[in-house]
Amino acid sequence: MNEKLKSELITHLSSFLSEERNSKFDDVLSNRTRRITVVLEDLYQSHNSSAVIRSCELFGIQDIHVIEGNNKFSTNNEISVGSAGWVDIYKYGDNSEFDVSSCYHRLKESGYTIVATSPDENSKGLDSINIDDKVALLFGTEENGLSEEALVISDYSVTIPMYGFTESFNVSVACSLILRDLTERLRRSNLNWKLSEEEIRAVKYSWLMKSVKNSDLIVKRFLKERVLPPDRS
Amino acid sequence: MNEKLKSELITHLSSFLSEERNSKFDDVLSNRTRRITVVLEDLYQSHNSSAVIRSCELFGIQDIHVIEGNNKFSTNNEISVGSAGWVDIYKYGDNSEFDVSSCYHRLKESGYTIVATSPDENSKGLDSINIDDKVALLFGTEENGLSEEALVISDYSVTIPMYGFTESFNVSVACSLILRDLTERLRRSNLNWKLSEEEIRAVKYSWLMKSVKNSDLIVKRFLKERVLPPDRS
Repeated sequence: MNEKLKSELITHLSSFLSEERNSKFDDVLSNRTRRITVVLEDLYQSHNSSAVIRSCELFGIQDIHVIEGNNKFSTNNEISVGSAGWVDIYKYGDNSEFDVSSCYHRLKESGYTIVATSPDENSKGLDSINIDDKVALLFGTEENGLSEEALVISDYSVTIPMYGFTESFNVSVACSLILRDLTERLRRSNLNWKLSEEEIRAVKYSWLMKSVKNSDLIVKRFLKERVLPPDRS
Repeated sequence: MNEKLKSELITHLSSFLSEERNSKFDDVLSNRTRRITVVLEDLYQSHNSSAVIRSCELFGIQDIHVIEGNNKFSTNNEISVGSAGWVDIYKYGDNSEFDVSSCYHRLKESGYTIVATSPDENSKGLDSINIDDKVALLFGTEENGLSEEALVISDYSVTIPMYGFTESFNVSVACSLILRDLTERLRRSNLNWKLSEEEIRAVKYSWLMKSVKNSDLIVKRFLKERVLPPDRS
């Protein structure tokens, strides 16, 4: 669909929502970013996946990449409370084999620096993450962390300072702590971290399609009226 | 037990652990604090309680207060990964009635400012928490947040900035985000946030009793030898 037509459709679909809802959409969109993205490798506890997605949504992270291996990715709506509907989730793998490679190529093509999160001794502190780079943060499975493949494709590893006996934070907690740190730094910076006009239109269109009742029908009717000349019979 | 005897027992019990383990104990103890404490009101998802305790342990929070109401407090060791053994958990209520009041009195007697965490519009940002005060952070149940009673006893409310549609963070995430913020500020400050020598001895003694095999027997034998004169027959 060309951008002009998409804009018109957005205007039309928006007219079915309240002013308050439209302004909420614009407010949330103005806070979305793709400069930071999250990659989840083979999480098996749905409450963790759900809490991660909820935090991503709240911190304005639009894209989440999910590599499925031994475990099928699932969320628990009691915890995600609908947040999965407002972010874009990209899946790799077919539940029997990891597909770290496809995910890696996609991230690299999009210009991401790949940062593993791992509580091992070679990991650096969060300050070592340079937010001038686009950053993809990798989080591994609950018990064993990231796979060897995931560690190999990473540019470097980071960890959060810990002062106790426990070896690591819960994965959804770790992800949220790092996202807060990075998004606060981004929002305070002069970097161009927001979505482009075109990206905003694409996301807004998809949100409107989900939010407006009978949106499919409305779009079909709109296109028909716009493309076909009015019936002059 | 008097402090001198406790010191001697600590030295004796320590001799049953490796040097590395002893130095880990001292390191963790030197990072423990009671200037910040966490109060959990009626959490019902054990993975949340577990993740909160794990984060408290890792951030050096020694005390956690648990008000049970409709739900019995329980942790899930797959998530807490043993962290509950290294913190002090104080329970209130009898599973049928909230006991906000006893908890309140205990916190006030210990000099805490009580801070509710709630995503409502009157809540202030995290910067408004004055770390010159001893701070007790209240977290409410997953679905409905804090009870009216808990909000009434709070000195003020705080919330974490959010940029999405979802109404709040997962409770274990919210707790971890606030704890990281406050403990980082404490550790950078000149405040006297560490445990006192006496508190360190008490905690260390309890950890040793849990960690040394047959500690009960060892203590009994030690006390017997120390109190009774050597047999001169």
